Amino acid sequence: MLALWLEDNELRLRDDVPIPELPPGEALVRVIRSGICSTDLELVRGYYPYTGTLGHEFVGRVEKGPQVLRGRRTVGEINAVCGECPTCRHGRPTHCENRTVLGILGRNGAFAEYLTLPVENLHLVPDEVSTNAAIFTEPLAAALQIQQQIQVCSKDRVLVVGDGKLGQMVSQTMALTGCDLLVVGHHQTKLDLLAARGIRTTLTDVVESRAFDVAVECTGNAGGFSVARGALRPRGTLVMKSTYVGELTYDASAVVVDEITMLGSRCGPFPPALRLLAQQQVEVNSLIHACYPLADGLAAFEHAQRNGVLKVLMEMCTE
Amino acid sequence: MLALWLEDNELRLRDDVPIPELPPGEALVRVIRSGICSTDLELVRGYYPYTGTLGHEFVGRVEKGPQVLRGRRTVGEINAVCGECPTCRHGRPTHCENRTVLGILGRNGAFAEYLTLPVENLHLVPDEVSTNAAIFTEPLAAALQIQQQIQVCSKDRVLVVGDGKLGQMVSQTMALTGCDLLVVGHHQTKLDLLAARGIRTTLTDVVESRAFDVAVECTGNAGGFSVARGALRPRGTLVMKSTYVGELTYDASAVVVDEITMLGSRCGPFPPALRLLAQQQVEVNSLIHACYPLADGLAAFEHAQRNGVLKVLMEMCTE
Repeated sequence: MLALWLEDNELRLRDDVPIPELPPGEALVRVIRSGICSTDLELVRGYYPYTGTLGHEFVGRVEKGPQVLRGRRTVGEINAVCGECPTCRHGRPTHCENRTVLGILGRNGAFAEYLTLPVENLHLVPDEVSTNAAIFTEPLAAALQIQQQIQVCSKDRVLVVGDGKLGQMVSQTMALTGCDLLVVGHHQTKLDLLAARGIRTTLTDVVESRAFDVAVECTGNAGGFSVARGALRPRGTLVMKSTYVGELTYDASAVVVDEITMLGSRCGPFPPALRLLAQQQVEVNSLIHACYPLADGLAAFEHAQRNGVLKVLMEMCTE
Repeated sequence: MLALWLEDNELRLRDDVPIPELPPGEALVRVIRSGICSTDLELVRGYYPYTGTLGHEFVGRVEKGPQVLRGRRTVGEINAVCGECPTCRHGRPTHCENRTVLGILGRNGAFAEYLTLPVENLHLVPDEVSTNAAIFTEPLAAALQIQQQIQVCSKDRVLVVGDGKLGQMVSQTMALTGCDLLVVGHHQTKLDLLAARGIRTTLTDVVESRAFDVAVECTGNAGGFSVARGALRPRGTLVMKSTYVGELTYDASAVVVDEITMLGSRCGPFPPALRLLAQQQVEVNSLIHACYPLADGLAAFEHAQRNGVLKVLMEMCTE
């Protein structure tokens, strides 16, 4: 089958990748469409060593698996876990010590005609959610993870730093709390998407200092971290939502004196993400900038890396 | 009056510091004894610019102030706050935007014959608490602040990194939760004080990795931070209890992937600290290594900086 394969930091289109064999407890999914995430771009840049088919945001139809899923549109949680290690048994399965992660760690991903995932990872896409919208289930779930970790109150002042794909998801979900929200970004066209939804935005990094209860860092760079940190009131919470290339340096004494909480945040729950999409509480279609056939996957990657571009999709088959 | 005065990173014994005038709402305290804290040593090293009388751990008798306090032994919270700024009004007075801090920020401290503090900052020392023990109220309160910020459960595995003055207070208070506690330090004699109380200790930095629910960093150096970080399980909490000289560098992506919480922690509540001292739930007398008259304050500082030394006191007057 066709697949976008990463090896030695080189992404190649291969037509000789075998259709995956079905391990026990897993389902074979024929991929319809997939989305390129910033993590994919970073993996190509060598953020983390990975060899295999890339991609973890997808919608597909189950070809082999339980009767109830067969032929239905599904999305899939990306962490395949053992269920038996101490971390799983303590209720933290996304941190499973033996996990594989779709298209990221030890498990071939979604930029291919077929993938497999444990049956328990799959979620049916409600009929009212389009395939294009459902591709955003995974990043939307990641945004919702913040509110699994901390309570965001409607009276809170919240700053989101970053107007990219992740910043868009985080901003839209934060806005649903009714909080006093400000989004800082560097791209007027991206901020305009949020402003059109009534969300307050600014192009400048100079925001009120020591004023926000919560700051969510969605840029993955030191400059964004610095903006988020400076905006926080004493005892405020800095959510680190994006992975960082390299190490981060900061004034630790000021973090102690101001009693700041810094919190890493990763994968989140799929069911609420699908509910918000079904209720159209989150708007994702305007974030899609292009869709390429899988055969043009390298061009899709080139497009996704251009400045100002949000989501680029790949299509593996028609619905 | 006599006072240990810090100016341009030089500590001097002065005999010409005037007895402080009494501002409205404050009490005049005649200091009996004071303790040297690591923050004092760092201020002398230039951690933070401060000019004035040093010292913030003390027991004294109120000479001028409300009738109920006069002549009584008192300890004092070190943050003098405005009560009117947004931070105070939001219930975070220790972070008051207009605060002065005894012997640390804009307010002459306790290494002197007299000091003043707002009446509301003062707490009576129960009769059953000795003056020497009561000097530990402030650092003990700082240790207890951790449990104002996070819940430590008896089933938690907790690592304390550091066996110095702060590590001793944190370890003893953590042990009171019944948690599964391990203290890592570099001084056998200091660890022995904890071991004598049934607390598990180790001289080696090599502790089980990715295993602890909570790690409390009490060393204020990058090596201690690294030990604490490496010991944490995914979604664990790293409490940064000590101030740091300079900046701290760490792998931020790993913090995101492991969804670690890092939490700065500073001043804490005096009443529970005094209760624990009154109930003799915390043992502090064995931490006192020396007591000098204030006139020999420079020698006291020299002593406090020696390797392996815990608490050094200064005496201003007899009880």
